[in-house]
Amino acid sequence: MTWVDGANGSPYGVTNLPYGVFRRGTDAARIGVRVGDFVLDLAGAEAADLVLAAGALGRPTLNDFMALGRPQWTSVRQRIIELLSDEAHRSAVEPLLVPLHEVELLLPFEVADYVDFYSSEQHASNVGQIFRPGQPALLPNWKHVPIGYHGRAGTVVVSGTPVTRPTGQRATPQGPTTGPSVRLDIEAEVGFVVGVPSAIGDRVAVDDFADHVFGVVLVNDWSARDIQAWEYQPLGPFLGKSFATSVSAWVTPLDALADAFVPAPDQDPPVQEYLHDTPHLGLDLRLAVEWNGERVAEPPFAGMYWTPAQQLAHLTVNGASLRTGDLYASGTVSGAERGQVGSFLELTWGGTEPVKVGGAERTFLEDGDTVTISATAPGPDGTTIALGEVTGTVRPAR
Amino acid sequence: MTWVDGANGSPYGVTNLPYGVFRRGTDAARIGVRVGDFVLDLAGAEAADLVLAAGALGRPTLNDFMALGRPQWTSVRQRIIELLSDEAHRSAVEPLLVPLHEVELLLPFEVADYVDFYSSEQHASNVGQIFRPGQPALLPNWKHVPIGYHGRAGTVVVSGTPVTRPTGQRATPQGPTTGPSVRLDIEAEVGFVVGVPSAIGDRVAVDDFADHVFGVVLVNDWSARDIQAWEYQPLGPFLGKSFATSVSAWVTPLDALADAFVPAPDQDPPVQEYLHDTPHLGLDLRLAVEWNGERVAEPPFAGMYWTPAQQLAHLTVNGASLRTGDLYASGTVSGAERGQVGSFLELTWGGTEPVKVGGAERTFLEDGDTVTISATAPGPDGTTIALGEVTGTVRPAR
Repeated sequence: MTWVDGANGSPYGVTNLPYGVFRRGTDAARIGVRVGDFVLDLAGAEAADLVLAAGALGRPTLNDFMALGRPQWTSVRQRIIELLSDEAHRSAVEPLLVPLHEVELLLPFEVADYVDFYSSEQHASNVGQIFRPGQPALLPNWKHVPIGYHGRAGTVVVSGTPVTRPTGQRATPQGPTTGPSVRLDIEAEVGFVVGVPSAIGDRVAVDDFADHVFGVVLVNDWSARDIQAWEYQPLGPFLGKSFATSVSAWVTPLDALADAFVPAPDQDPPVQEYLHDTPHLGLDLRLAVEWNGERVAEPPFAGMYWTPAQQLAHLTVNGASLRTGDLYASGTVSGAERGQVGSFLELTWGGTEPVKVGGAERTFLEDGDTVTISATAPGPDGTTIALGEVTGTVRPAR
Repeated sequence: MTWVDGANGSPYGVTNLPYGVFRRGTDAARIGVRVGDFVLDLAGAEAADLVLAAGALGRPTLNDFMALGRPQWTSVRQRIIELLSDEAHRSAVEPLLVPLHEVELLLPFEVADYVDFYSSEQHASNVGQIFRPGQPALLPNWKHVPIGYHGRAGTVVVSGTPVTRPTGQRATPQGPTTGPSVRLDIEAEVGFVVGVPSAIGDRVAVDDFADHVFGVVLVNDWSARDIQAWEYQPLGPFLGKSFATSVSAWVTPLDALADAFVPAPDQDPPVQEYLHDTPHLGLDLRLAVEWNGERVAEPPFAGMYWTPAQQLAHLTVNGASLRTGDLYASGTVSGAERGQVGSFLELTWGGTEPVKVGGAERTFLEDGDTVTISATAPGPDGTTIALGEVTGTVRPAR
């Protein structure tokens, strides 16, 4: 329970407390946590000695704080809960609460490397059927290797940033042509943000996930399917993805998701030893995709074949180092039903089965469309917490 | 002509002057240029008002200097040439010359995003024949799209850094297994370093290459062929590459390569409009690959099908932004002859045709092997300049 007006019973109560970076007016950008419809100014709180975090809360990104490691993450969180729960702190803390509508939310961390996985069996299978009809839906490596690739870190943008329709090459029956993408799509994903780095040559064991990963963001991996289809062989997606990847402004700390870990799907055939996580846990995050305000899909993250701990172990098994700010995303979250898919490619089955949006038949994104991905997760005592949404509106090609 | 001892007639004379970052003893890391067998301390030169660069030379990486743009790059270079050529400056400048053998060379710039292209027709064709026998050597998109993908920026290391043999999954007739790579290879490449950024949504025109690109490094894109072969479908190379990418300690400014631009190979079929560079120029860089001190290949960069200007235009045609410190590499440089290939995969034709190294038959890299890639280029008046070498020694898997 908190003394903050309206926060009790909200999905942003004191059991949630996601971190972000905000700016109010001409003040410098600073770190805050969301509680109810307020942002607690943590730079101000640290300056007033209400919270101690080695000065890391006075920075314009979360990176220095994320580098401190789990003991500090947990102690800072406990202290914030105390400040927001105990009436005795109210007079000192209340002046540091800023109404959410008065702030601009910024990219919460400086992205080091961005990796995108491909961890939903249903998504990989759907894409296989759509792109390679008549062939096995899953490639032979898929149940052995958590397939992933590097994306462009420099074009990761915060929720709310407009997305310009990309121009690029696509194949036509008359040969390749260059122009604005005509198959602009979304991918609803969950991203994991690395706080604690590792040295080059080292591996991060599958059980050390929580020592390195600070928290979770929602991700929209905007995808130009026509550009991607023409370019992706043999080295994978490039310009079909690199124009923009949106992330939520709020990073939900793993500590807020303690009640959301659930057994992940059984893996058969057995995975390689370095991927053997005990217990084998996924996260019960329930995503929702809104297309111009209409809910078109509810992708269930709990059903992902590969877990975030397995992805991290895989990413580093070759000795690749981690840096603070590394972001790795799950890949599109799709469940078994048509109403559970995380891309419009799947929702409209390659554009062949339009859906009704705003009364019109739609396949891919039109200029002016807005897509918002949100999610909830189980909190303590039967409560529900919300993850910060990721939203974006498509602007016409230049 | 310079007053610096031994620099005249050296491939590091005053027509070359590559930039790097060095440390001597316990001094802070700082920027220098190489002249002969000395490093000119540019942080010291700027502190003494001998060179003006908005304070950017006093930093531990080249990034701030590279962000200044071509007019400043050129004026600083002209001033350095003047300082090193005019005897009148000798007494002020000579104390700032540090013998090369007294310094440690560091990674010269902070890498933002790292992209690797695939621009040698011979290399793409060789790999196609080795990996996909019986099928067309080049995929249908190859002569239309400068194929590329994002690599891991966080594991770009400076020349001289040992490379630990990566562990990972590979396919065997009995199914996948995990262990140290048994097909560890090199890729001899040329990398282009971006100085001036661009905004998201903008495109960099093919003619604006020199406004954005500061200079050139040599690159060894270490590659574990067994890991790569098993993982790369459908999203491209990942762990087979991400354990390490080595770059030379010296960044050769484009201004030093003015005499190295030569007509690039004709492109047929015609390329898309945004890739139409006039004139269509490559760089006459002559690479050499040494394996444990024996020269095994001399890859000619002038024959690359896609030019660096085309690669940059392609990278941004979708509106992807550039950041200072972005590195994009050419892909393996291979010529038409067996003695001109930039990978051991090609040199030994997939490991089926061993070569003699140190008297022994060899296919891929063994622990303790050292590979050094060097290059020369035409300088003014029939002279030759050298690019800084990139070298690395393989350490056993952990």
